[in-house]
Amino acid sequence: MKAAIIFGSRSDTDKMKGAAACLKEFGVEYKAFILSAHRVPEHLEKTIKEIEEEGFEVIIAGAGLAAHLPGVIASKTILPVIGVPISASNLDGMDALLSIVQMPKPITVATVGINNSYNAAMLAVEILALKYDSIKNKLVEYRKKMKEDFIADNNKAVEFDI
Amino acid sequence: MKAAIIFGSRSDTDKMKGAAACLKEFGVEYKAFILSAHRVPEHLEKTIKEIEEEGFEVIIAGAGLAAHLPGVIASKTILPVIGVPISASNLDGMDALLSIVQMPKPITVATVGINNSYNAAMLAVEILALKYDSIKNKLVEYRKKMKEDFIADNNKAVEFDI
Amino acid sequence: MKAAIIFGSRSDTDKMKGAAACLKEFGVEYKAFILSAHRVPEHLEKTIKEIEEEGFEVIIAGAGLAAHLPGVIASKTILPVIGVPISASNLDGMDALLSIVQMPKPITVATVGINNSYNAAMLAVEILALKYDSIKNKLVEYRKKMKEDFIADNNKAVEFDI
Amino acid sequence: MKAAIIFGSRSDTDKMKGAAACLKEFGVEYKAFILSAHRVPEHLEKTIKEIEEEGFEVIIAGAGLAAHLPGVIASKTILPVIGVPISASNLDGMDALLSIVQMPKPITVATVGINNSYNAAMLAVEILALKYDSIKNKLVEYRKKMKEDFIADNNKAVEFDI
Amino acid sequence: MKAAIIFGSRSDTDKMKGAAACLKEFGVEYKAFILSAHRVPEHLEKTIKEIEEEGFEVIIAGAGLAAHLPGVIASKTILPVIGVPISASNLDGMDALLSIVQMPKPITVATVGINNSYNAAMLAVEILALKYDSIKNKLVEYRKKMKEDFIADNNKAVEFDI
Amino acid sequence: MKAAIIFGSRSDTDKMKGAAACLKEFGVEYKAFILSAHRVPEHLEKTIKEIEEEGFEVIIAGAGLAAHLPGVIASKTILPVIGVPISASNLDGMDALLSIVQMPKPITVATVGINNSYNAAMLAVEILALKYDSIKNKLVEYRKKMKEDFIADNNKAVEFDI
Amino acid sequence: MKAAIIFGSRSDTDKMKGAAACLKEFGVEYKAFILSAHRVPEHLEKTIKEIEEEGFEVIIAGAGLAAHLPGVIASKTILPVIGVPISASNLDGMDALLSIVQMPKPITVATVGINNSYNAAMLAVEILALKYDSIKNKLVEYRKKMKEDFIADNNKAVEFDI
Amino acid sequence: MKAAIIFGSRSDTDKMKGAAACLKEFGVEYKAFILSAHRVPEHLEKTIKEIEEEGFEVIIAGAGLAAHLPGVIASKTILPVIGVPISASNLDGMDALLSIVQMPKPITVATVGINNSYNAAMLAVEILALKYDSIKNKLVEYRKKMKEDFIADNNKAVEFDI
Repeated sequence: MKAAIIFGSRSDTDKMKGAAACLKEFGVEYKAFILSAHRVPEHLEKTIKEIEEEGFEVIIAGAGLAAHLPGVIASKTILPVIGVPISASNLDGMDALLSIVQMPKPITVATVGINNSYNAAMLAVEILALKYDSIKNKLVEYRKKMKEDFIADNNKAVEFDI
Repeated sequence: MKAAIIFGSRSDTDKMKGAAACLKEFGVEYKAFILSAHRVPEHLEKTIKEIEEEGFEVIIAGAGLAAHLPGVIASKTILPVIGVPISASNLDGMDALLSIVQMPKPITVATVGINNSYNAAMLAVEILALKYDSIKNKLVEYRKKMKEDFIADNNKAVEFDI
Repeated sequence: MKAAIIFGSRSDTDKMKGAAACLKEFGVEYKAFILSAHRVPEHLEKTIKEIEEEGFEVIIAGAGLAAHLPGVIASKTILPVIGVPISASNLDGMDALLSIVQMPKPITVATVGINNSYNAAMLAVEILALKYDSIKNKLVEYRKKMKEDFIADNNKAVEFDI
Repeated sequence: MKAAIIFGSRSDTDKMKGAAACLKEFGVEYKAFILSAHRVPEHLEKTIKEIEEEGFEVIIAGAGLAAHLPGVIASKTILPVIGVPISASNLDGMDALLSIVQMPKPITVATVGINNSYNAAMLAVEILALKYDSIKNKLVEYRKKMKEDFIADNNKAVEFDI
Repeated sequence: MKAAIIFGSRSDTDKMKGAAACLKEFGVEYKAFILSAHRVPEHLEKTIKEIEEEGFEVIIAGAGLAAHLPGVIASKTILPVIGVPISASNLDGMDALLSIVQMPKPITVATVGINNSYNAAMLAVEILALKYDSIKNKLVEYRKKMKEDFIADNNKAVEFDI
Repeated sequence: MKAAIIFGSRSDTDKMKGAAACLKEFGVEYKAFILSAHRVPEHLEKTIKEIEEEGFEVIIAGAGLAAHLPGVIASKTILPVIGVPISASNLDGMDALLSIVQMPKPITVATVGINNSYNAAMLAVEILALKYDSIKNKLVEYRKKMKEDFIADNNKAVEFDI
Repeated sequence: MKAAIIFGSRSDTDKMKGAAACLKEFGVEYKAFILSAHRVPEHLEKTIKEIEEEGFEVIIAGAGLAAHLPGVIASKTILPVIGVPISASNLDGMDALLSIVQMPKPITVATVGINNSYNAAMLAVEILALKYDSIKNKLVEYRKKMKEDFIADNNKAVEFDI
Repeated sequence: MKAAIIFGSRSDTDKMKGAAACLKEFGVEYKAFILSAHRVPEHLEKTIKEIEEEGFEVIIAGAGLAAHLPGVIASKTILPVIGVPISASNLDGMDALLSIVQMPKPITVATVGINNSYNAAMLAVEILALKYDSIKNKLVEYRKKMKEDFIADNNKAVEFDI
């Protein structure tokens, strides 16, 4: 099982690394692609086809500004596309959020929070868990550990600097 | 394969019917539940467990105002949760959109556009298509027909009333 | 000289008729196309090519919600693309405005006000006036008449209903 | 009389210390808890029960992003819950504010300004003052001193650096 | 035990009636006052003093536009003041929400959702429940009945009109 | 003493009549002008000169959308210009508010609330009261009567329809 | 002729110094007061009375957050009050802007841009110029010099660092 | 063929240099002017006339705050005016965007993204390409190279720092 991580500029690598980290944590193979809906539309189309043929099952797409990338990808594949609004402008990512989430029917993008690429991958993991029991088991385990860790970490008293 | 449609008030039935219509169109069995994260938290938890046990594979959750329902559901299941922000207040659904999409990691909600329950179901269909070839085939067919219909419908000249 | 008017749904005809009215006023030939960046991407591409070949010189594109249409068109042509954000959602067109105007470089869309298709056409006319003296002369005349009419119309006293 | 201060991450300690400082100033015993509505819902529920049993009388809950914590706590107790929206995202706390204040009836959260944990505690003090005369007296004294200090502090001329 | 309901204009009576209905439901005596922070500041001050002297224990204050009323009241009493932002302008109550919730320390207003006067009263009830066991018992009963009613009401299947 | 009321379109007459009503109430002579900064810039300039020469002392200017009118007037006169943002678009007047209030130094516009032309005139009255004792006396009287009327009007009990 | 500059906290001195600089430039005597509508309402009232008695003719009031100060001052005097929204919170002054500009009739505040205290003073100067010819003459001279300086300063070519 | 770049303050030179860089890249002659709609309206008018007479064919105008400059220029010429909203205030350029894009008909400004002066020039280039084949050829070449460079640059694998 494989997930594709697509974004528009090498400079967004850092904001998208949460997705890679989460997928790695769950042992989901991933590959990252830098693509642009506007600059290389034909190359995008060709790459999406290859992504489908190579058996990728879910696509995570991050974009800023007038963030058309996730929606344009979604129009070219029936794979689930998860969109990450990136804060790349003065508007703190609100432009990207609205450009991604307000897709008119019936082309749809699963949108997560601004810059929250980790959660995008978590959603990919949940989707893959429907089909792959190994992922499902890891997810059950992850949730269990998340709870235990949270409680362990927050067991000790909070010290306010007052 | 089954999808659950959950929302907080019978008065939102109309805004959520797009989800039912889309699932029906694809032959995905669905069941609707009216649940509240705040009014009946225990009943919610119990129902989510039943939803998991009865083999539902994806959850569509619509909510307005401080729309906690999708996030709270997501915290209680590893099934993918798709959130529909509903415009139930003076703020035109912007409150619901932010309350749903800005989930902190690692609990995640796949958010769609305000009141766009149809697209929520379409996302559910894409997710199910990863696992079920029958759905995948229908989706390929749907996209094909969508294109043909669009072109056929828009073949005739546009008349402006000027 | 010809201008293309493109929008995504026959139901937006009324909001786009200002563009047609303005072009007609200036004797600019126009043709309207209903196209969708997401539903018929290949057909869009083919139509844009035809628009170029048939000698259209400027494109007016109206779209609502996550309004990708103008930007996607701009990525497929070097003709100037003028974008009209349409108020098609609960967010009063703010989503469409940001999705159109915040295009990352170097693909660009000349954006006008929400639902202001008349001004989109006026911009098209100004662009054509650079090349066609007949249009330039009409534009000079239009501005002159606009001023005279404004003064004539507003010559009489304002009556407040108090 | 005791107040609970609850928030979702140790990293918010600094933003919540205003609450502790204010409660200390009034001699209200407090205890801080790091809890998450989404990560440890069962532990949250259990802790809220303990908080009730241990005689805490008011709860201050700070949260950022899709800030469900105060509302979820309010659904599990009849103690007054005071919500502090924390600016933890690109949206400067507007997401947290709307997620906290727009609670649908009848579960309610007393919301204060973004990051204003001091005012949350002040509200707690006012609530406790209804029941405890010692607090009421301190509050009357506080207001009196606040006025005297303000006037004393601002008695001297303002020097503009012009 | 008594609660005061204060607002600035008789025309807001309808938006504030939720508060009266809720207080009545819990058997909390209330009295409504129409007062303005800007038009009758001296009368406001005098009335707030009387409200304190007559033993009111909590104040619900609704206001629209630049909604100063709740904050100004809070500066003149140590009783808890609950603010209801009213949508009285083109800005859908966002102006009132920010004018009420963003109070600088140490004067504080417990803010609820836009037009949500019912929740303001519910907060008043929770505050009074700390001191009055009769109210506390009613609140426990209310929550219990709320849950039972919700489940009973939503027991029957949802019918989508599709 | 005279005030000018300027706005851009006869269709805004109703939104500006509050200004006329207030000026009439105070016996301030006024004259209304329909002018456009963009359509008749030369005519505007000429009219502003006449307004100055005819002894008008304050200018009230209402405008919607990209509301340049008040700022452009202010750049052509040293008379105080009071700007009224008019809700003429999908953005509820927020566009007009920002276009009027955010004037860069040193040209300045005294901005009032959206559609609040009455308050614009009240500000004009306060300005004129500095110079004209007759206006000052009326203003003192107005405030006195405002208070008495408010108290008289709101003397009777509020009846909630519950 | 004298102007009062009022603001709520010594820490805002820097943001208000533009007002002092502008008044000084025009030779308008000014005095600054640190006052709070909420912390010292009685002292505020007393000071406003003194300001009136001492012959101040215009008041500039700066405030941040739920910026009630200008409106509260306006309710206590018939002098023109000019409000400066100060960016003192996470919301970049939008909260202060709405809290100041959206005053309900008939109490009014002349609002200027966020942090633009210079323009507030310029408005004060324009108001005083109606009454005092010396100020009027300076203002005419200022505008003349402003134009000459602008043209002189911008006479030389612009060098882009490309 | 020549383009004019106009903006209001030498301090914005850096934000406008993208326009100069783009025009230079395409061999379009340009000249920059610092002008203000409010400070030097007569000089602005005179300069626009000279710009027209000297054969400039398109105007790029950048402005911040209440950004009237592009619209005021558009009212004085029939040349296409391209507006660049500049983030010069606390509101991140949203004020400038709305002040530029929401121009009422029939005066129109081609608006690009906040601070995106490069795209403004690109739009100018597209407009000039309609008339000048040399520019058209360069634009075709630019697009071709843009695609090749993008693909070449993004050929190598993305390395996440995880």
